[in-house]
Amino acid sequence: MLAGVIGATGYAGAELIRLLSGHPKINELLLASVSHSGESIETVFSQFTRLGLGTLLSPEELVSRAGVVFGALPSGKGESYAKACLDRGISYIDLSADFRFDKDEETFSAWYGLPYVYPELRNHSVYGLCELNRSRIRELAAQGPVIVGNPGCYPTAVSLAAFPALAGALDIESGGVIIADAISGVTGAGRDLGRAYHFPECGDSAAPYKVGSHRHTPEIYRNLDIMRKRKGGRTRLVFTPHLGPFNRGILATVYIPLGSGSGGQCRPASEDTAAKARQIRAVYSEFYRDEPFVRVLPEGRSAATNQVRHSNYCDLSVHLDQSGMTLIVVSAIDNMVKGAAGQAVQNMNIILGFDERAGLESLPALF
Amino acid sequence: MLAGVIGATGYAGAELIRLLSGHPKINELLLASVSHSGESIETVFSQFTRLGLGTLLSPEELVSRAGVVFGALPSGKGESYAKACLDRGISYIDLSADFRFDKDEETFSAWYGLPYVYPELRNHSVYGLCELNRSRIRELAAQGPVIVGNPGCYPTAVSLAAFPALAGALDIESGGVIIADAISGVTGAGRDLGRAYHFPECGDSAAPYKVGSHRHTPEIYRNLDIMRKRKGGRTRLVFTPHLGPFNRGILATVYIPLGSGSGGQCRPASEDTAAKARQIRAVYSEFYRDEPFVRVLPEGRSAATNQVRHSNYCDLSVHLDQSGMTLIVVSAIDNMVKGAAGQAVQNMNIILGFDERAGLESLPALF
Amino acid sequence: MLAGVIGATGYAGAELIRLLSGHPKINELLLASVSHSGESIETVFSQFTRLGLGTLLSPEELVSRAGVVFGALPSGKGESYAKACLDRGISYIDLSADFRFDKDEETFSAWYGLPYVYPELRNHSVYGLCELNRSRIRELAAQGPVIVGNPGCYPTAVSLAAFPALAGALDIESGGVIIADAISGVTGAGRDLGRAYHFPECGDSAAPYKVGSHRHTPEIYRNLDIMRKRKGGRTRLVFTPHLGPFNRGILATVYIPLGSGSGGQCRPASEDTAAKARQIRAVYSEFYRDEPFVRVLPEGRSAATNQVRHSNYCDLSVHLDQSGMTLIVVSAIDNMVKGAAGQAVQNMNIILGFDERAGLESLPALF
Amino acid sequence: MLAGVIGATGYAGAELIRLLSGHPKINELLLASVSHSGESIETVFSQFTRLGLGTLLSPEELVSRAGVVFGALPSGKGESYAKACLDRGISYIDLSADFRFDKDEETFSAWYGLPYVYPELRNHSVYGLCELNRSRIRELAAQGPVIVGNPGCYPTAVSLAAFPALAGALDIESGGVIIADAISGVTGAGRDLGRAYHFPECGDSAAPYKVGSHRHTPEIYRNLDIMRKRKGGRTRLVFTPHLGPFNRGILATVYIPLGSGSGGQCRPASEDTAAKARQIRAVYSEFYRDEPFVRVLPEGRSAATNQVRHSNYCDLSVHLDQSGMTLIVVSAIDNMVKGAAGQAVQNMNIILGFDERAGLESLPALF
Repeated sequence: MLAGVIGATGYAGAELIRLLSGHPKINELLLASVSHSGESIETVFSQFTRLGLGTLLSPEELVSRAGVVFGALPSGKGESYAKACLDRGISYIDLSADFRFDKDEETFSAWYGLPYVYPELRNHSVYGLCELNRSRIRELAAQGPVIVGNPGCYPTAVSLAAFPALAGALDIESGGVIIADAISGVTGAGRDLGRAYHFPECGDSAAPYKVGSHRHTPEIYRNLDIMRKRKGGRTRLVFTPHLGPFNRGILATVYIPLGSGSGGQCRPASEDTAAKARQIRAVYSEFYRDEPFVRVLPEGRSAATNQVRHSNYCDLSVHLDQSGMTLIVVSAIDNMVKGAAGQAVQNMNIILGFDERAGLESLPALF
Repeated sequence: MLAGVIGATGYAGAELIRLLSGHPKINELLLASVSHSGESIETVFSQFTRLGLGTLLSPEELVSRAGVVFGALPSGKGESYAKACLDRGISYIDLSADFRFDKDEETFSAWYGLPYVYPELRNHSVYGLCELNRSRIRELAAQGPVIVGNPGCYPTAVSLAAFPALAGALDIESGGVIIADAISGVTGAGRDLGRAYHFPECGDSAAPYKVGSHRHTPEIYRNLDIMRKRKGGRTRLVFTPHLGPFNRGILATVYIPLGSGSGGQCRPASEDTAAKARQIRAVYSEFYRDEPFVRVLPEGRSAATNQVRHSNYCDLSVHLDQSGMTLIVVSAIDNMVKGAAGQAVQNMNIILGFDERAGLESLPALF
Repeated sequence: MLAGVIGATGYAGAELIRLLSGHPKINELLLASVSHSGESIETVFSQFTRLGLGTLLSPEELVSRAGVVFGALPSGKGESYAKACLDRGISYIDLSADFRFDKDEETFSAWYGLPYVYPELRNHSVYGLCELNRSRIRELAAQGPVIVGNPGCYPTAVSLAAFPALAGALDIESGGVIIADAISGVTGAGRDLGRAYHFPECGDSAAPYKVGSHRHTPEIYRNLDIMRKRKGGRTRLVFTPHLGPFNRGILATVYIPLGSGSGGQCRPASEDTAAKARQIRAVYSEFYRDEPFVRVLPEGRSAATNQVRHSNYCDLSVHLDQSGMTLIVVSAIDNMVKGAAGQAVQNMNIILGFDERAGLESLPALF
Repeated sequence: MLAGVIGATGYAGAELIRLLSGHPKINELLLASVSHSGESIETVFSQFTRLGLGTLLSPEELVSRAGVVFGALPSGKGESYAKACLDRGISYIDLSADFRFDKDEETFSAWYGLPYVYPELRNHSVYGLCELNRSRIRELAAQGPVIVGNPGCYPTAVSLAAFPALAGALDIESGGVIIADAISGVTGAGRDLGRAYHFPECGDSAAPYKVGSHRHTPEIYRNLDIMRKRKGGRTRLVFTPHLGPFNRGILATVYIPLGSGSGGQCRPASEDTAAKARQIRAVYSEFYRDEPFVRVLPEGRSAATNQVRHSNYCDLSVHLDQSGMTLIVVSAIDNMVKGAAGQAVQNMNIILGFDERAGLESLPALF
């Protein structure tokens, strides 16, 4: 298969190059850039020096030659390529937010400040959170070329943490707020320079950003709402992203209310609480039993970004607070892999009928 | 004044040395160590080479000579020195948890697994969160030598973030859970070696630890409960600490429920919500108006650990989620200064009648 | 092929696991540990949770079953396993220093303080710096099972930087000192805890260590001496390692005197000097023309550890000082890959007749 | 004294603010900016929020009111303010390179590509490396207002490392090359954004830059040449800067040839070599005996940037290579303090007759 990457000069593009180069079913890779076409990819990413990755094409030329296309462009910039792909009969995997909201243009526009360019493309698109939509993706792909709206990094981490709790096996507080507190490495901000990403301004420090206003909020909300509706109940979500002084990884700590406790004294968790935690952990393990890339960690272990570094795994650790009334699920992904390029490759594998693990089997690297 | 530091060979000890050396009212500094007495402090902390800081005394000798004593020892190890100080008529500022729970030995023992050694010392001790207890500290000190239970780092950051909301001016949800999600630099773990603090195991990564079981939980709970009782209502608290790949600083993101929202669509914050945030920010500013070391940040700014680095400030930024129903307060302190040695010096200043800012006026260093 | 790793619980062991798991010719992997046999590898390296890597064997059992064995043990601890492998007719790739000095036990003992346990094993061993000894390794392996003394991390980086200059095509100063100034990430210190590797003691800082006394000095010296003898002349070497606050990578800056200049004014490099640099760069490019893992960077670029991260590449950038009399070659490797596990796999590929790139083709990851 | 800082919005400016705010002789501080005059310093550096540091003046207004002025501007931008200060009868301490080369405009122009704007100002200027020029600075200041050319960060670290060896007490190789290999934290690059300083491009990595062409080369050369001429002999210098993933600090490893050795076998250092190292260390200690800010470390210790963090100290550790023929001196400074703002304050103290340590007595902070 000949795969193409449009937007190869961004960080998600670089990661797609890295993953697709090692994919057993991809025998050729085409790269394109809107702004750097005609240049060598080496002039942009010097780590790719002398690797024979070729010259950056124009997106148009890439679309005309590739067998499957990845779009790693800012929101609003890729719809025409998606359309061109469909017209040519090939699938398009989009890493922006353009196709994450399906036909709900209103929500997309409210948060991204953009209209849909070709609204009708949503007749052929599917939201690509594999663990949620695998069968839908497969079904749609069986009918012809598709567009996949590859999920955001935070929505992937947070949704996978919350899904088993919302899916029905647990008693959770009706109307309670789910709080997702997450921290990302600086690659999440992309390759564009910015004061906040200048090493001396973020090195050796931690800070929140876009509190109460991050664009991933409605995507997380929608995912949780879908899962919750299987059981009934109202969805409420608070999401706060932070920036930490590391390169890769997202750690999300998700708080899910299990009911209204009595308050009272603050004492260490009882043995009952520990037993309850084990039960919930078992629910989580069962929920993800067949998932190739979700690992529910055993008791006594906590998710950590370096435990999934450079891999497509999402690690989940399941805890209760001392009172046993709040479920705390910690989720760790590599934001560039499961949070972007890796999940995009996973979606390609599903669409094209490859082994879902193909090209994604590298073990996590602690460092 | 001749100040003494017992436990000078730990990180809090080193920070006390750094701060007290620059304190205008301290003209001599004595250092003691249980395990290294007789050695030079330079052999332990080579950054102190050739600075004339002298030889480590035994704690007993230090107590016999100092005018005020700081104890930077593990919990359960310092009570006898506290007693010896009181007996000699000098005050003792304790950086462990031994005196943070006043007469509530039950809570202390439940979480720390230790009894009080000299329970009666709590007749002369006071919890040293300056912004909460300044007048009590002053009153007690007016009567004679005192013991100060210097607060934990997380309790300082979290309590200052929550106090104005709990104190009565805001409508907050009765029975709602306050969630405190915090991340600390690795100095918070102290000088003892451990797998989790080995550079390759924590560098370039983030992870939670002691989820649902950290010993600072009851201290935070107690502080919030005190403040809440001014208004009435039940206190519920969930606290999750994380470790980040930086040296200093704690960032705490505290979620306070303002009421039960309607759920429904997820839309960006309305202008009403922005206005409500401004009102709450004004309440916070008013609450801390006269505090020398608490800064409520203006609209559009977020607290960050590098904004308070090497200083005694606690920065607070006040936000609402998109629905306006959850108050999000972000708190940043330097865990070694306001979270340990700096607040201890602040307590000394209060006790001894010095300007509360003395020795603590260094500006934050961005890097 | 069934490969085995003895010493799987150290960092080099973990990296061997990572690389061998993705190797197309290795269909099964056995892991052994002297101290943890019987335990699951997951209990040591939690990043390997749920990956089916099995239980740690005893080294003896591993040797009895494997088709090729990697030894990642401290110097002096692996000779008996090497012997057992030879006796069984299988090859042993040793990542310690035990087989790096061939029959020169005197030098080994002088620096490592240990005798050879089975000196006669050196009749079957070869130093595994692939770019130096590829043909010798092949020849020896053609005759039967071999022991490979896999090079040290610093010697790999420094030797590859100096070889082309010493090999004869350049005029270098007779008797001049070659200075190798290098900095390593903290994984180079291994998994054992130590004060110097405690995050707060090395984070956000840089320092040298073992100045004038690092054990890699004689290995580098020997390598340079071998290459220099092709031309004649005396070898002098100064090597200084440093520790930097990063996980992986070695950057070595190697200074090679080209002759004795006139001193005089200090002016920017002339065009003649730039031309001379281009000529030397061409010599370097020619020297490594057929090497799969050495990249001589084009003019205007400098080697950097993140340009080779997670890859088996050694990047070299060639420079002159402003006077044109000192050649400055900067070398970057991933200390865990080309500096340890990757080169060991490369040696296995050579020995077993696999494509030398097999299992080592992953692209460098900038982050 | 009323001190003024022009260029207060850069990193050196911020550090001057930090140091001067704690200076016992400075009772008021004026800040100016060419580009941000009229704004609050808080809008640029949010760490200074609510500290009452006032509004940024125009440089002209500042000069008209201050009693001493610091210029923290790019080279070529500050001469007119220096002139205005002299005209007003006040001293000007310049942190750019404009006054580091005294009357040697030719060297300055060759490396900086700029002419002197007011060459005659060099009749009133002095190079401000305190340990070299203290008496000249004092003498000149005794005659009236002066301009100080505050040294570069690398020249400070490297010169202090080499001076005692060059000053005459040691036998060093005539015509031998001195190699200065140094690594700096990212604050050294200043506040302007750049690809190389974007966190994901320099985090967790190390790289050289401007090899053979850094502008600090002629300044170091000149300093070494001055010292060497006291004894005679020719000066040759190679200087290579590197960038490391930390905020502050410069570590310079300086290689000084002591003579031409015999080559031969590579063995660990002999006892004679250890004795020779002790003698040289004694020469260094004696040389800096009365210096308030230079610490020659005892045997067995190495300089490290975190040992001088946030302080004005320069730490030197003295070593020999295994053959005893190359002197290796490692120098550590905080690039923002002794390498910039701290030394500028030290110069102010000398000029104005204050205690040279005033405002610079804060202890090094390990973290």
